[in-house]
Amino acid sequence: MGKQYNRLNKDDAAVLLVDHQAGLLSLVRDIEPDKFNNNVMALADLAKYFNLPTILTTSFEDGPNGPLIPELKALFPDAPYIARPGQINAWDNEDFVKAVKATGKKQLIIAGVVTEVCVAFPALSALEEDFDVFVVTDASGTFDPLTRDAAWDRMSAAGAQLMTWFGTACELHRDWRNDVEGLAALFSKHIPDYRNLMTSYNTLTAGK
Amino acid sequence: MGKQYNRLNKDDAAVLLVDHQAGLLSLVRDIEPDKFNNNVMALADLAKYFNLPTILTTSFEDGPNGPLIPELKALFPDAPYIARPGQINAWDNEDFVKAVKATGKKQLIIAGVVTEVCVAFPALSALEEDFDVFVVTDASGTFDPLTRDAAWDRMSAAGAQLMTWFGTACELHRDWRNDVEGLAALFSKHIPDYRNLMTSYNTLTAGK
Amino acid sequence: MGKQYNRLNKDDAAVLLVDHQAGLLSLVRDIEPDKFNNNVMALADLAKYFNLPTILTTSFEDGPNGPLIPELKALFPDAPYIARPGQINAWDNEDFVKAVKATGKKQLIIAGVVTEVCVAFPALSALEEDFDVFVVTDASGTFDPLTRDAAWDRMSAAGAQLMTWFGTACELHRDWRNDVEGLAALFSKHIPDYRNLMTSYNTLTAGK
Amino acid sequence: MGKQYNRLNKDDAAVLLVDHQAGLLSLVRDIEPDKFNNNVMALADLAKYFNLPTILTTSFEDGPNGPLIPELKALFPDAPYIARPGQINAWDNEDFVKAVKATGKKQLIIAGVVTEVCVAFPALSALEEDFDVFVVTDASGTFDPLTRDAAWDRMSAAGAQLMTWFGTACELHRDWRNDVEGLAALFSKHIPDYRNLMTSYNTLTAGK
Amino acid sequence: MGKQYNRLNKDDAAVLLVDHQAGLLSLVRDIEPDKFNNNVMALADLAKYFNLPTILTTSFEDGPNGPLIPELKALFPDAPYIARPGQINAWDNEDFVKAVKATGKKQLIIAGVVTEVCVAFPALSALEEDFDVFVVTDASGTFDPLTRDAAWDRMSAAGAQLMTWFGTACELHRDWRNDVEGLAALFSKHIPDYRNLMTSYNTLTAGK
Amino acid sequence: MGKQYNRLNKDDAAVLLVDHQAGLLSLVRDIEPDKFNNNVMALADLAKYFNLPTILTTSFEDGPNGPLIPELKALFPDAPYIARPGQINAWDNEDFVKAVKATGKKQLIIAGVVTEVCVAFPALSALEEDFDVFVVTDASGTFDPLTRDAAWDRMSAAGAQLMTWFGTACELHRDWRNDVEGLAALFSKHIPDYRNLMTSYNTLTAGK
Amino acid sequence: MGKQYNRLNKDDAAVLLVDHQAGLLSLVRDIEPDKFNNNVMALADLAKYFNLPTILTTSFEDGPNGPLIPELKALFPDAPYIARPGQINAWDNEDFVKAVKATGKKQLIIAGVVTEVCVAFPALSALEEDFDVFVVTDASGTFDPLTRDAAWDRMSAAGAQLMTWFGTACELHRDWRNDVEGLAALFSKHIPDYRNLMTSYNTLTAGK
Amino acid sequence: MGKQYNRLNKDDAAVLLVDHQAGLLSLVRDIEPDKFNNNVMALADLAKYFNLPTILTTSFEDGPNGPLIPELKALFPDAPYIARPGQINAWDNEDFVKAVKATGKKQLIIAGVVTEVCVAFPALSALEEDFDVFVVTDASGTFDPLTRDAAWDRMSAAGAQLMTWFGTACELHRDWRNDVEGLAALFSKHIPDYRNLMTSYNTLTAGK
Repeated sequence: MGKQYNRLNKDDAAVLLVDHQAGLLSLVRDIEPDKFNNNVMALADLAKYFNLPTILTTSFEDGPNGPLIPELKALFPDAPYIARPGQINAWDNEDFVKAVKATGKKQLIIAGVVTEVCVAFPALSALEEDFDVFVVTDASGTFDPLTRDAAWDRMSAAGAQLMTWFGTACELHRDWRNDVEGLAALFSKHIPDYRNLMTSYNTLTAGK
Repeated sequence: MGKQYNRLNKDDAAVLLVDHQAGLLSLVRDIEPDKFNNNVMALADLAKYFNLPTILTTSFEDGPNGPLIPELKALFPDAPYIARPGQINAWDNEDFVKAVKATGKKQLIIAGVVTEVCVAFPALSALEEDFDVFVVTDASGTFDPLTRDAAWDRMSAAGAQLMTWFGTACELHRDWRNDVEGLAALFSKHIPDYRNLMTSYNTLTAGK
Repeated sequence: MGKQYNRLNKDDAAVLLVDHQAGLLSLVRDIEPDKFNNNVMALADLAKYFNLPTILTTSFEDGPNGPLIPELKALFPDAPYIARPGQINAWDNEDFVKAVKATGKKQLIIAGVVTEVCVAFPALSALEEDFDVFVVTDASGTFDPLTRDAAWDRMSAAGAQLMTWFGTACELHRDWRNDVEGLAALFSKHIPDYRNLMTSYNTLTAGK
Repeated sequence: MGKQYNRLNKDDAAVLLVDHQAGLLSLVRDIEPDKFNNNVMALADLAKYFNLPTILTTSFEDGPNGPLIPELKALFPDAPYIARPGQINAWDNEDFVKAVKATGKKQLIIAGVVTEVCVAFPALSALEEDFDVFVVTDASGTFDPLTRDAAWDRMSAAGAQLMTWFGTACELHRDWRNDVEGLAALFSKHIPDYRNLMTSYNTLTAGK
Repeated sequence: MGKQYNRLNKDDAAVLLVDHQAGLLSLVRDIEPDKFNNNVMALADLAKYFNLPTILTTSFEDGPNGPLIPELKALFPDAPYIARPGQINAWDNEDFVKAVKATGKKQLIIAGVVTEVCVAFPALSALEEDFDVFVVTDASGTFDPLTRDAAWDRMSAAGAQLMTWFGTACELHRDWRNDVEGLAALFSKHIPDYRNLMTSYNTLTAGK
Repeated sequence: MGKQYNRLNKDDAAVLLVDHQAGLLSLVRDIEPDKFNNNVMALADLAKYFNLPTILTTSFEDGPNGPLIPELKALFPDAPYIARPGQINAWDNEDFVKAVKATGKKQLIIAGVVTEVCVAFPALSALEEDFDVFVVTDASGTFDPLTRDAAWDRMSAAGAQLMTWFGTACELHRDWRNDVEGLAALFSKHIPDYRNLMTSYNTLTAGK
Repeated sequence: MGKQYNRLNKDDAAVLLVDHQAGLLSLVRDIEPDKFNNNVMALADLAKYFNLPTILTTSFEDGPNGPLIPELKALFPDAPYIARPGQINAWDNEDFVKAVKATGKKQLIIAGVVTEVCVAFPALSALEEDFDVFVVTDASGTFDPLTRDAAWDRMSAAGAQLMTWFGTACELHRDWRNDVEGLAALFSKHIPDYRNLMTSYNTLTAGK
Repeated sequence: MGKQYNRLNKDDAAVLLVDHQAGLLSLVRDIEPDKFNNNVMALADLAKYFNLPTILTTSFEDGPNGPLIPELKALFPDAPYIARPGQINAWDNEDFVKAVKATGKKQLIIAGVVTEVCVAFPALSALEEDFDVFVVTDASGTFDPLTRDAAWDRMSAAGAQLMTWFGTACELHRDWRNDVEGLAALFSKHIPDYRNLMTSYNTLTAGK
């Protein structure tokens, strides 16, 4: 028998955004800042676009780690927001786990800062409880590529699937015809090369 | 007992070329363009050379994604050509799956743009249906190495074998004596270093 | 005697944006797209902010090179816009040179795509006519770092000064007190790390 | 059932520091020296901080391999110190294994020089005896990234978990509230970016 | 007075292709082979296209250095061809210098293998005799980037201008209107990204 | 129960050197030539040093692939030498397999050029027949890192262990005391940094 | 006549440390943080060691740029400290220039954050006033290597000499015999490889 | 008038090998050790081959810097050997300068460790005294590429020519016919790719 394709499904998925805080972001050096910022916002925008239940959490946000970046907060004004009083692994925080379970979703899309801690720890905890875990690798950042590689290996060995925001969007959308304009707008906003393709296309077909 | 060597066999294999479209190719940045173009055409040439059933498919080719690159189309004028009306995963398109199954082959050699979507999605679908999947990694391109690494990990974990066009050609050919000149011509066309070896060799042995 | 510091002065400077066209941008591979897009828009925003005379020009915009990216056009609705009918070196176009000279400025801040052609050619032409040339290297892109390095060497040897958008903004502004909020807004918009510093700072000083 | 999260626990873990010797360190070229030195000392400091049983061992320290670096020795004056008379794999030395087993711990945190030998060999031996092995990848060094990648693959395939010192510290600490100042001091000492965050934070909140 | 723009002019320029031999090419490792081969052929094609006098020369072609690559020879069947009997610096060969001077051109466009010898030596000799030297950096190859950088510095300090094949073509052509189709064909053949732009453009404007 | 440590043992191991031919070596570009040459000779020297049965084989050595490099041939004058008449996978050659089986060894240490073909194919074949396969990654070379990574993934997934020559030597030797001078001579010859350590050590202890 | 060697002389030199502030340091991404921090402190320690007049200055230290890092401040408690109220170019601040001129030194050793602004601007200003400028490149940091390269080119073209902290220390010290232990202590503290050499040396010569 | 080609001439040149000591070599990290060792020995071999006066010098060789590497010493048993008692710049040592001047040569070929100190200082001193200085960049090593780039810029700006060992050998030899076998032997020994070309060539022409 073939290996089951555990595929993202927009009715089964929730998004967990872990510790994208203004201070912690200065630690991220495995992805260039303009690109990383774009990746994080692209993931947030797709969560919004697909209307996925989204949970925000922060670690010690009153200290040097700093506040959640305001762009994220503004996008999800009504999302559960768990400011953890100390737990490093978000899954060790009861409110967070409750919020996750309250979504009723089995597929968890996780991204955060830093990868080997804020992403890997809840990912491993969720896998243990039999959730399907999809790590959005390019919306997760850490100190350097060596650290990232080690974190990926640990999560992959435990059964997490390594995704990117673009792959996540495509797997959720399934078919362009579900909403051509919506998906195109998402891509245009976050992929300069795609925006350019659309610009040229629209210009040339304008009179048609 | 040892692990079975699931080996490419030219009587059992078909080639799926997914979304090598003029617009989408501008997104490929994990492989330098001269090299990537060469790799794609080398894969196409070997498919032709080994006479493998080959299936072409495109995504939304009337929009910004652009048309299939004409070099590929010209090489396979009679191949099944599925212009998907919207499905992102080619395997979600019935015509495509029918065309694949119509080949009667169990080994699927897949390449496409972009790796984590157009290659990974049908690869995972095919694995689920118990096909043997061989991903031609160097004829598949995407945004950056990070994205590529994540996509490879997902496909490898599901049982896909990661190949290159050169490894694919060698595994299919088995023995130089099956056709020395044919294989040498393929390598000479697509590997400048090999062409140079042949030039020097031919010059020195010309009078012999 | 020491070497004269030929310093940007907001009363003496004009900005030339050369061939940032939707098609040509797909050729830029020495700078990652998210970053390059940000650099170009940062340069445009600073030109606006410092109220510098700005000239837009394009090469063959009705062909494959594609239209000027709309974000740039929108920012400078009243700027001279020279759609060159064929001249590769913008300085070979009389209207362009007239527009430059009409600004009455001696310091030319140039950026464009691709660096060794669309930037280097007018830069060398302007130097010959005794303008002071400041190349905004990070808002100019080309095929690969090797090409960039060769282009920089040629321009530097001819007397051009190699700048970046950030250095350009700082040299023009001279003193934060001229407008703290304006400059901070520019940096916050285009430097994610700086925006994070401001976020943390503002949060901590909010109650003060 | 989900995959068990085999998680570091400060009551179950011991640290093995293998062959961080003054001569051997000149072989380490996959991590830049300032960074590698910092990583090794950070691991040592965290072992101390969490009061984990720690074992030091060296290979042929009277020859060209050189003495254990004094900073490590000074930190663990009372730790078991096994100067191996010749065994390359520390696990082949009875005293070493005795010392490990005397800790009564099941989780072994291992780092050393060079990765594919001094770390991988005892890691594989320990896994065979059913210990849980956590390799601190960034406090382990070797000739080049290719060598490192091969060593990681071998250890990961055998069941070792790939960690970094930061991930190790966070997984052991569990909750900032267990000791905010202690953990912050560790991070401040070994992560310049974090120290800077604390500096800014402390300055701005000084008067509060 | 501004610095004179010493600009390529198709009536004043000759092309010198030095030692692109099948054996020597195996030494080139600062540029990837597919790309390097493309760059060399692009330079040859542009020499042909602009009808520039072109001189071929080889070093010791009967030995391990191997024959001139046949693609180059085929393109210039009637060009002066100097198989040097031993001189390493082509300029030390009287026939070569005679052939150069016979062109009556003052601007010499030089490329070859390896950069620091076969290109730099004749470049420095020609500069001494007051020729204008334009080095086509990307059609010249050598052992590694360090070697290349040193060679570039030596040539640039002596007054050579560092070009690429694309910059050379653009500076020679001056104006697209001189021959739109010819230049476009050259770019389409040697720049995959540009070919894709043309494919999309032609498809979308086909019916217009 | 822990995972068995399948450890190299000098009484159980044979070495297979596959297609290190003068022509094919020009294709190797994932490892710098001085380093690669050193790695291959280090593996050969260790095979000799540990007196391991060693088998040499070549592919089409009378053609452009070229002869086995003479340094290898000279080191193993009496080793089985299988010049394959055409089989690309050495394991498809009966004489080769016979020679392997005639060694009576179960552990096969394999290196060759190029990695994804000449190494991977016999490695996968041998694994299928239940041999233990140890790939010497740094004495195996191929076109680029992407190709190498794909080949490693395929072999690792099939159960091969990824080694380097240094790890191989250390795992075989077990204990310095078995022959301090012999192992030190091997390292001194092939690791410049280690030779320097020995030079300094010997100088300082000379009078002792 | 040969070119004069403009050589650092400890009686003629002063050190300017510009804007090494806790916030601004998060922008430095062209040098890894552990290394950069070490380089900055090494420069500070050598300034102290050679007893060079040292001037500290900051930009807007009460805002997001953050305070001078305390390690620097602690090292130079009595140094002139100019907290600039707004001038971006330190040389635009009269107090700063006065402090520089008060040292009576003609050789200025400059380092700072970020290179193209905080270092380049005062460097160019000082060159104009005929000071000799020595830029400590590795104690100066900025956004990325492209930015650094552009800044270096601009400063070098204006006559600045590009140094590193190690070269600066060696050029100032002239002869080990001036103080063997002092210089060795400086190197041991800031160069792990050198510290290891000393450790091995001291161990082996301990009994002599 | 053209710029004079200051060309190496074997009757006018001397070689200075500065501080290639066993300890200091552990600091060299801008060139991989196998390659660097090869480059240094290639330079030494060419000095021998062209019979150039060669001068050896060391810094503090009884301390941690360690002895001159024995391979170099063995090659030049009768060369002037200046063990400097403390001067960091070899040119500050009278015996060294006397030895240089005693050669009566005006062209100085310099290499050493580390580049920005042991090479740059005597290079700048020699330029001041109107010697022609040729820096063998690839036989000179230092901490990292940033340090190397700064050192190159300083030396180049002062008039030094940046060479490599291969360029040096070719410029000195002038014509293969002066001694085909000698030069070929030098290249074969130090360039694996060239050795392979010769192996294939010799095999194919053996019977001719």
